[in-house]
Amino acid sequence: VTDHDARDTIETDTQPKRAWRGAVADRSERFELKRQVVLRTAARIFSRYGFHQTTLVNIANALHIAKPTLYHYFKNKDEILLEIQQMAISQITDVAQDAMPGDASGRKQLETFVRRYVDMIIDDFGTCLIMIGATPLQPQNRTVVRKGSKQIEKTMRQILATGAADKSLPPCDPKIAAMFLFGSLNWIPYWYRRDGALDPDGLKDRAVEFVLARLNAKEA
Amino acid sequence: VTDHDARDTIETDTQPKRAWRGAVADRSERFELKRQVVLRTAARIFSRYGFHQTTLVNIANALHIAKPTLYHYFKNKDEILLEIQQMAISQITDVAQDAMPGDASGRKQLETFVRRYVDMIIDDFGTCLIMIGATPLQPQNRTVVRKGSKQIEKTMRQILATGAADKSLPPCDPKIAAMFLFGSLNWIPYWYRRDGALDPDGLKDRAVEFVLARLNAKEA
Repeated sequence: VTDHDARDTIETDTQPKRAWRGAVADRSERFELKRQVVLRTAARIFSRYGFHQTTLVNIANALHIAKPTLYHYFKNKDEILLEIQQMAISQITDVAQDAMPGDASGRKQLETFVRRYVDMIIDDFGTCLIMIGATPLQPQNRTVVRKGSKQIEKTMRQILATGAADKSLPPCDPKIAAMFLFGSLNWIPYWYRRDGALDPDGLKDRAVEFVLARLNAKEA
Repeated sequence: VTDHDARDTIETDTQPKRAWRGAVADRSERFELKRQVVLRTAARIFSRYGFHQTTLVNIANALHIAKPTLYHYFKNKDEILLEIQQMAISQITDVAQDAMPGDASGRKQLETFVRRYVDMIIDDFGTCLIMIGATPLQPQNRTVVRKGSKQIEKTMRQILATGAADKSLPPCDPKIAAMFLFGSLNWIPYWYRRDGALDPDGLKDRAVEFVLARLNAKEA
């Protein structure tokens, strides 16, 4: 197949051409994609070995690039961690908002919340947020992350209260119940392995079962 | 009151005298007591500010002693953390053993385990074990702490299996259930404050209620 043939094929079929166009990122998109790869790799290394135990050289080695190349994307290790934690917080906050569509029962909202929350915390960014937390960040940045956590906790409490009000969930103390439930979910990154016997969908099913059982919810 | 009078009072009342004798620690006991104070203070500071964010000067300042005095008790910060984590692990392991008296039902064992485990993890050493973990330790020491954690997890799984066998607890997958339950309990140090509305006994009651939720609903 010559170049000319290939171009002809593309020209005659507009659908693949458009798809191809989208896939060829421009310079700034390519830059952003590479930054994302750095962030995701760093998140995995931080979660596994700890933030203070990780050097920029460790991250560069895992990416098969030289350490100076990293500075093209990030100022320092702190900036990498802050971006990871901010991405995790914004993803989890989106989840929290999606779980409250207004018309669903509290129980249904809780189920949606648990499934999406588990998805997020077994993702590299969410795992890093849970396992590394805000402590290594600069004080002013810690506040950003902690505000996000407070927001998510508030959403869970609202869902529990909604469920108690519409009788789709048994009454409970939403404050205490939310903390016990977040505990069960936030501990998942410490023990769950994607390559183990339980796949992510199975994990989400078990998490929903556990949460509803702990709230004394009758089986649907 | 002169020294002589004081001695007389003590001599005539043998009960306080014996108590007093026990309280006057000898040199090695005093040394050990002071080490314990250092450990407890360090545990609080590590849990609150993070291990890497804490210096020996921070610990010495909190104790109102000079930094060189600390070296009388410990070689370095790593040694302090290792001793804290080892004490926490041994306390929690004791708890695990106490919870299995052999003749109690699985449900009763689980209740005992939860109450004693919560006691331990809201104590300075247990809180530090949960919040700082084994990651900052030297690799050979990490293994000691992780072995202890595995032992405690095994105990919980055995209790859940005992409860399923004697029908005092509903059947479950002990492996998954244990991890969700440990999550709920291990998250407590992240949100619980002793000076808040819930006192430690109240907290333990709520933890037991939460863990046994579905079962209690059936009985009620």
